[in-house]
Amino acid sequence: MPSPASSKGASLDHFWAVVPAGGSGTRLWPLSRAGAPKFLHDLTSSGRTLVQSTWDRLVPLATPERLLLVTGEVHAGAVRGQLPQLERGNLLLEPSPRDSMAAIGLAAAVVARRDPEAVVGSFAADHLIPDARAFGGAVRQAVAVAQEGHVVTIGIQPTSAATGFGYVRTGEPLDVEGAPDAVRATGFTEKPDAATAERYVAGGDHRWNAGMFVARADVLLGHLQAQLPQLHAGLLELAEAHEDLPAHKAADVVERVWPTLTKIAIDHAIAEPVAAAGGVAVVKGSFSWDDVGDWDALASLVPDLDGSSLRVLGDMESVVVQDSTGVVVPRGQRTVAVIGLDDVVVVDTDDAVLVTTRARAQEVKGVVEALRAKGRGDLL
Amino acid sequence: MPSPASSKGASLDHFWAVVPAGGSGTRLWPLSRAGAPKFLHDLTSSGRTLVQSTWDRLVPLATPERLLLVTGEVHAGAVRGQLPQLERGNLLLEPSPRDSMAAIGLAAAVVARRDPEAVVGSFAADHLIPDARAFGGAVRQAVAVAQEGHVVTIGIQPTSAATGFGYVRTGEPLDVEGAPDAVRATGFTEKPDAATAERYVAGGDHRWNAGMFVARADVLLGHLQAQLPQLHAGLLELAEAHEDLPAHKAADVVERVWPTLTKIAIDHAIAEPVAAAGGVAVVKGSFSWDDVGDWDALASLVPDLDGSSLRVLGDMESVVVQDSTGVVVPRGQRTVAVIGLDDVVVVDTDDAVLVTTRARAQEVKGVVEALRAKGRGDLL
Repeated sequence: MPSPASSKGASLDHFWAVVPAGGSGTRLWPLSRAGAPKFLHDLTSSGRTLVQSTWDRLVPLATPERLLLVTGEVHAGAVRGQLPQLERGNLLLEPSPRDSMAAIGLAAAVVARRDPEAVVGSFAADHLIPDARAFGGAVRQAVAVAQEGHVVTIGIQPTSAATGFGYVRTGEPLDVEGAPDAVRATGFTEKPDAATAERYVAGGDHRWNAGMFVARADVLLGHLQAQLPQLHAGLLELAEAHEDLPAHKAADVVERVWPTLTKIAIDHAIAEPVAAAGGVAVVKGSFSWDDVGDWDALASLVPDLDGSSLRVLGDMESVVVQDSTGVVVPRGQRTVAVIGLDDVVVVDTDDAVLVTTRARAQEVKGVVEALRAKGRGDLL
Repeated sequence: MPSPASSKGASLDHFWAVVPAGGSGTRLWPLSRAGAPKFLHDLTSSGRTLVQSTWDRLVPLATPERLLLVTGEVHAGAVRGQLPQLERGNLLLEPSPRDSMAAIGLAAAVVARRDPEAVVGSFAADHLIPDARAFGGAVRQAVAVAQEGHVVTIGIQPTSAATGFGYVRTGEPLDVEGAPDAVRATGFTEKPDAATAERYVAGGDHRWNAGMFVARADVLLGHLQAQLPQLHAGLLELAEAHEDLPAHKAADVVERVWPTLTKIAIDHAIAEPVAAAGGVAVVKGSFSWDDVGDWDALASLVPDLDGSSLRVLGDMESVVVQDSTGVVVPRGQRTVAVIGLDDVVVVDTDDAVLVTTRARAQEVKGVVEALRAKGRGDLL
């Protein structure tokens, strides 16, 4: 068995990266839309969209041959446009959302057919990880641990008692060569209440679960078979169709099998039950991470360039600010003027403008619901 | 001499209304622009623009034959479009702004040639006076007093210690038939400081000077000749050219004379010196009035239709509000969403959006200056 950790800087043998690109990101409306969700946007004005940045981070580890992306059929064109290097056979399309276990499981089943020794790592398409080098180091460790048969999650050092993230409890160190930061996972908690989150962060035993799972394909599929045999069988059939059947016949299989797949998150399907049995490890990542859940989160992530504390995500020339703090996102080819508001959020697009505060950014979801109720699907 | 007050409901004999339509209204940016200033907008969503409402108020008193409008050459097309009943010879065009004395004096000189017994009343094109009936009653009284040789201003009962308006001090009653609310004016104060304004309002002797002046044309021109003989001569020459010369010859006179006219407000040119000599009267108007100086003023004027205290000036359907107060002006054919802001001002237009608070509304002027400094005249 190769020792991935010994080949720093090069791609990792048998490592396959899977990027589930889903979710509509309604809390980032009006920029994020059903037809153009969060991962297709360059939220931080970095010059690359979130899915492109995800590609940039993973491709040195996996090579384009071993980088798969799973997304909704409606986003196929946009994804191909943004990722011209993505290989045609590596784009898996979902006819409808079936949650993360179906997406990752299908990719693992496809990968297992191509490489029986494959280690699969799953990484969301719409998270921000500025330090690609530290990220790569953690993935290398996770792959080393996964080679040993563990399901591995990369745990993020919490920087606040966030209630919007899941937490993983860390146990005793694992003695795996090339993985000094690996410990056993002793439990998962989904979005805790504020008091619990405070206790977790103060205690030091908990890390944010950023949804980055790494496992050997055979291990992952074995757990899936044990936990959810019907889902497992469906995914194997879909993988076989994707790999071996001509397109029109594969489409028949998708049409028949896809709607039968159990809608479940990988956390519930595998991570939690397997952790309870001692089969999950955590690699303690030493990089900053954010899922950019809302405009408030985004405002925190952007450097305060001109010292005024009002961040502009877009063309600075199209914003006029007087005595204000917060964030302005000018994406509507218009001038945005802000006077005398603190912690304001202004997001300007071609057909909608949002005005709120960082503290109320979570409530953007409610606006999206109100627009849906009004029959304004054109804006969503 | 006819008794105007005896013909209630009919037009007033020899009464000529003059509407100076100028000013760019920069504090109402981005709706009000140099090319489409305040008077051309329907700020309150009443269905009529400010200049149209001014027309509606005055035409029953003056008839279309005796209603003149003075505006910049660049606004001629827009004014004709909004006021199709305005007679061609009653639109006086200024090649450049020369302040209110030139505008009103020119109109008075034109009117004096048409009707030697004319009483001229000047009323801004961009003020709001909801009660046209009470306004008409005050004008009738002012005309009666003007017939006696006074320069008459209509004084507005202050509803706050505003520092943005001029004040006129009221003296002993005048005994003029048909004008029970007429008193002598004993002095004018331009935009006082806050303490002075408080004292004025508490004292009860002061009224807002709303810039509504009524006088016999011969009286007005006589005062002008005494105070500013050169300006007087220039205006008479322009009036003669307007009335008697063919267009191309009149244009030569305008080109030669207009730039020589003294730039001065009628308040300084006539009202103040004549008041000092006892020649100015005040009719105490009993109607509400507002010059809609900024978005804060506008927000106060608009009824709170849905009980949420957030006013929408435009299509309610294009606004989504959660837990906010203030005013939204959706004029950009887009959806405006506002969450969790108090006393906010959001003005959305095709090429610019303004976000501020009612308390900071005065500072919109600064944004306009900043845009001018940036060379963004296209937005102004």
